[in-house]
Amino acid sequence: MDVMKESLEMHGNFKGKMEIVSKVPVNDARDLSLAYSPGVAAPCQEIEKSPMRVYDYTIKGNFVAVISDGTAVLGLGDIGPEAALPVMEGKALLLKRFADVDAVPITLGTKDVDEIVKTVKLLEPTFGAINLEDISAPRCFEIEERLKAECNIPVFHDDQHGTAIVTAAGLENALKIVGKRKEDVKVVINGAGAAGIATLKLLRNIGYQNIVICDSKGIIYEGRPSMNPIKDEIAKISNPEKLTGTLDDAIQGADIFIGVSVANILTKEHIEAMNRDPIVFALANPNPEITYDNAKRWGVRIIGTGRSDYPNQVNNVLAFPGIFRGALDVLATEINEEMKMAAVKAIASLVDEKDLHEDYVIPKPLDERVVPAVAKAVADAAVETGVSKLYSLNK
Amino acid sequence: MDVMKESLEMHGNFKGKMEIVSKVPVNDARDLSLAYSPGVAAPCQEIEKSPMRVYDYTIKGNFVAVISDGTAVLGLGDIGPEAALPVMEGKALLLKRFADVDAVPITLGTKDVDEIVKTVKLLEPTFGAINLEDISAPRCFEIEERLKAECNIPVFHDDQHGTAIVTAAGLENALKIVGKRKEDVKVVINGAGAAGIATLKLLRNIGYQNIVICDSKGIIYEGRPSMNPIKDEIAKISNPEKLTGTLDDAIQGADIFIGVSVANILTKEHIEAMNRDPIVFALANPNPEITYDNAKRWGVRIIGTGRSDYPNQVNNVLAFPGIFRGALDVLATEINEEMKMAAVKAIASLVDEKDLHEDYVIPKPLDERVVPAVAKAVADAAVETGVSKLYSLNK
Repeated sequence: MDVMKESLEMHGNFKGKMEIVSKVPVNDARDLSLAYSPGVAAPCQEIEKSPMRVYDYTIKGNFVAVISDGTAVLGLGDIGPEAALPVMEGKALLLKRFADVDAVPITLGTKDVDEIVKTVKLLEPTFGAINLEDISAPRCFEIEERLKAECNIPVFHDDQHGTAIVTAAGLENALKIVGKRKEDVKVVINGAGAAGIATLKLLRNIGYQNIVICDSKGIIYEGRPSMNPIKDEIAKISNPEKLTGTLDDAIQGADIFIGVSVANILTKEHIEAMNRDPIVFALANPNPEITYDNAKRWGVRIIGTGRSDYPNQVNNVLAFPGIFRGALDVLATEINEEMKMAAVKAIASLVDEKDLHEDYVIPKPLDERVVPAVAKAVADAAVETGVSKLYSLNK
Repeated sequence: MDVMKESLEMHGNFKGKMEIVSKVPVNDARDLSLAYSPGVAAPCQEIEKSPMRVYDYTIKGNFVAVISDGTAVLGLGDIGPEAALPVMEGKALLLKRFADVDAVPITLGTKDVDEIVKTVKLLEPTFGAINLEDISAPRCFEIEERLKAECNIPVFHDDQHGTAIVTAAGLENALKIVGKRKEDVKVVINGAGAAGIATLKLLRNIGYQNIVICDSKGIIYEGRPSMNPIKDEIAKISNPEKLTGTLDDAIQGADIFIGVSVANILTKEHIEAMNRDPIVFALANPNPEITYDNAKRWGVRIIGTGRSDYPNQVNNVLAFPGIFRGALDVLATEINEEMKMAAVKAIASLVDEKDLHEDYVIPKPLDERVVPAVAKAVADAAVETGVSKLYSLNK
């Protein structure tokens, strides 16, 4: 059956894909006196005395809110908080399935940045971490930044960083195949939304020096008309050669193309204009910027997409479950750049040198080694960078 | 083992009493394409077209937030949102155990009434109903009232209405035993917090006419010094004889005493000052206003308490699970007075005339007939009073 039809039917049958279950017995009066009144007063009093004990006696340490305002959902756009709920439920299930994280969907009835920041901040006592999801750019940047500054728990906008991390991991391995160094290559990112901008920033942090980013109006450069504060900022950290023009201009001599924009915009001419051994990550979903078959036919050496039916799937599920698992395991106060970079390396290193080839630069989404490896790398990086509440407790 | 010690140990072992589990398979790539991208777009689009479909395709219709600011927790008082979390988790478990409602604890990092109202309002798209819990009086009244006015889903402060409903149900049966009519009896309520005030209002709505309510400063009457707007309001709807003085004065000739205050305040003299066949619901927890043994010794005809180790336990678990179940089943927009009154009758009617006696005026908390009976009565009342979204859809 068609996946859309079957999914609709499944959603209708189950009326929600998740449920809450008890981990403790709740059968008789004795059970209830332990789980609820009067026994529950004991953990309450312990936490009142020592607030960190909330991690010992409650769900908080394993509890994540998947928060959206429904403004940038999948390829659907601004569909509102109710219509976004199936996606957030799905995301919560993935966190459970891949990383045993207990997550709940929360879609908010506002698009106002101040209201979203305020609301999430007020939810902080309950949750161990916050997954922001499907919030439109450029609002998502301000929301995440302000929450990171205000909250003492990790706040992670997966649409930005998940894509950036998996892309960066794939590129680590792709560059080995073509024998180039990240310091030397030219990267073109098409799309200056959440994923594009986060990818730019992460690639810069791990050593890429020549990155050009395009939006629907062409190459972003300092002083270009019709920019916003976010684009002003990224103009300063990209495009070192001060290129102007369109994607057609940007892609001349590029080693790597990363598409987080719209279907089918890459032509044969674009590929031919790239440097030898082109690497293309065409991540528009469900239809990529270039099909796998065209890419191969026109001379792309390594092609990755967001699709599960082609090799090198850039799937966020390689990143976010392990990242949350690792951050929660050490009670991290944030997910910092070092933790993201550790995730990149952990994901890339799972592709063994002997297995590495053009159609296998990224681990498969269901590879069971991924989450434990990412979680460990992220937890270690949190401890090393001093953002683990657990570690500082033990000192 | 001591219940406090055992509860603490249990909470420490489980680190949270609940978990989130998937109702749908999430094993292979096909499963993921149905539960998440790309299949999940299908229910999203259906909901975008027809917003009420959120009840068909998501958890919303069975999803309740148990919300507290941690200001009035059990007998512990204002212990803060982290320390309150074990109680809210416990409450969520009870909703699942008794009524198959999926509930999550949310404790908020603010005591500000405006902020609480705003935050809960913004959570509305996700939840089918809101259970307010352990919020201090008189703030709880304003919070509930404003949310009821603003939200299109039920908002129910259980500390107020749960206690009021079970108390009223017990009194229905107690009055049968002593052969008095509610129109004729004098009721004294000691305690003008959430439970006391809600009990006053509910008893008035079901026909009691002479109710006197006392706070720590004595009888509440119109024009008394040191009142607040809530107490001004209740002075107008209580104390028809314009009594003044203390509890000692109020209790003269009373037929019914309801205590929602402090331990051991009822003396032999108080009981002797009551009318024939005194009925006493001494609900202070864990230590009631009068012990079962003293009550019996001093001449109380019918004694109820909050304790599970004595007869006639006034336990909110008789009310709130069935109330939420019934309200959710018909997509009620609120829980109105008629629905509460229907719950009172349903609970009272489960005590069969032939079983009725002084030590059995209220069903047992684990009586399996209670939740279905309350749910049905509440759902029927919702439909009859026109607050069911389901019903108006079918018209």
